[in-house]
Amino acid sequence: MTKTTIGLLLFPNMTQLDLTGPLQVFSRLPNAKVYLVAKTMAPVTSDTALMLPPTTDFAHCPQLDVICVPGGAGADDLVNDEDTLAFLRQQADQARYLTSVCTGALVLGAAGLLRGYRATTHWSALEDLAAFGAIPERSRVCIDRNRVSGGGMTAGIDFALTLAELLADRPTAQAIQLMLEYNPAPPFNAGSPDTAPQEVVAMLKQRMQGARQHRIDAVKRAADRLLRG
Amino acid sequence: MTKTTIGLLLFPNMTQLDLTGPLQVFSRLPNAKVYLVAKTMAPVTSDTALMLPPTTDFAHCPQLDVICVPGGAGADDLVNDEDTLAFLRQQADQARYLTSVCTGALVLGAAGLLRGYRATTHWSALEDLAAFGAIPERSRVCIDRNRVSGGGMTAGIDFALTLAELLADRPTAQAIQLMLEYNPAPPFNAGSPDTAPQEVVAMLKQRMQGARQHRIDAVKRAADRLLRG
Repeated sequence: MTKTTIGLLLFPNMTQLDLTGPLQVFSRLPNAKVYLVAKTMAPVTSDTALMLPPTTDFAHCPQLDVICVPGGAGADDLVNDEDTLAFLRQQADQARYLTSVCTGALVLGAAGLLRGYRATTHWSALEDLAAFGAIPERSRVCIDRNRVSGGGMTAGIDFALTLAELLADRPTAQAIQLMLEYNPAPPFNAGSPDTAPQEVVAMLKQRMQGARQHRIDAVKRAADRLLRG
Repeated sequence: MTKTTIGLLLFPNMTQLDLTGPLQVFSRLPNAKVYLVAKTMAPVTSDTALMLPPTTDFAHCPQLDVICVPGGAGADDLVNDEDTLAFLRQQADQARYLTSVCTGALVLGAAGLLRGYRATTHWSALEDLAAFGAIPERSRVCIDRNRVSGGGMTAGIDFALTLAELLADRPTAQAIQLMLEYNPAPPFNAGSPDTAPQEVVAMLKQRMQGARQHRIDAVKRAADRLLRG
């Protein structure tokens, strides 16, 4: 029986939990082979002290059944990286699922792979999806045909369990959830701008203002190029 | 102002999410410095395709304010690793918090650091804690004086947010939760042996039987040594 090939994209300054949450789930799937794919074999930086060594590069990556693009600050640069966009487009032709976590959706969008598809992303980037012809949907996990996207960071776990059911079956996905003891009990009710104390939301938005402007500029450039392309 | 030093232990065949969940939270703490500490500087294997490069080794690690021991299959070997137990004991003298995620609690226990303390761990290992004189507590996050432990794998996120409040303050921890969009929505209600379908629990326990016996033997050896020591 042929193994399902799952490739998670690695790139500089990515949010490591966008990768490592889904990676934990996918790695427990029976009959699947997981690749960590980067432009080159050099370990990439994350937004933490953890460096992330790829297991393959664009040139050697086999055809993937599932492509997953994580997010993070580095994704704002990736939306204008032609090599990465070309790799995603080339893989997309024969992939079964094109997926993203967090602002990885912007990268799929910049590759032209979300035109006319509903998709979700980190709450701070939801409106940016429309620039790529995607239909932003505010949800934890969004499935539209073979596009599956998760919201911000920790949503990658919900996303991956949802995809695990699609790739295998419900008992398999449930067994993974049980193994991961994914029975969440957040100590605060602050995981969404709707529920967090409004002064916390304001403080965080204030702190993110520089990054927000950087993203707006990057998305505009990427969307212009996509329109011309 | 002196930075809070937080050290997460790296070791072969660890469960990477036990590390990467808390790492994501701790990395957003203001005025903290995070170390990934291993016996040597060689990247360690995880239970996934991801190799984990340390940032420091036992010999060069500064005194830590917070020690965090993740778990995984490799933790069952670590309970009998004298170098690791000695490192933990030496750090423990002046650390503010001794913490664990998942079966990392067994390692703290084997180092003699949980005698008379309540602690939690992965549901499959809870009864093993008693061999080290700990008082097993079935909870998502367990705080007893300066010992803070989290349950299995994904509990590391709840654990780390709880610790973030202790190290900083509630608005800081809430802002991290919001940034991580930690507003969980598991697609199934299968995250605990109490709620998962009983045939899924039975299937997983059956599959874990070999590892279970390995852990029982390892814990017995470690507990005997601790008693003699």
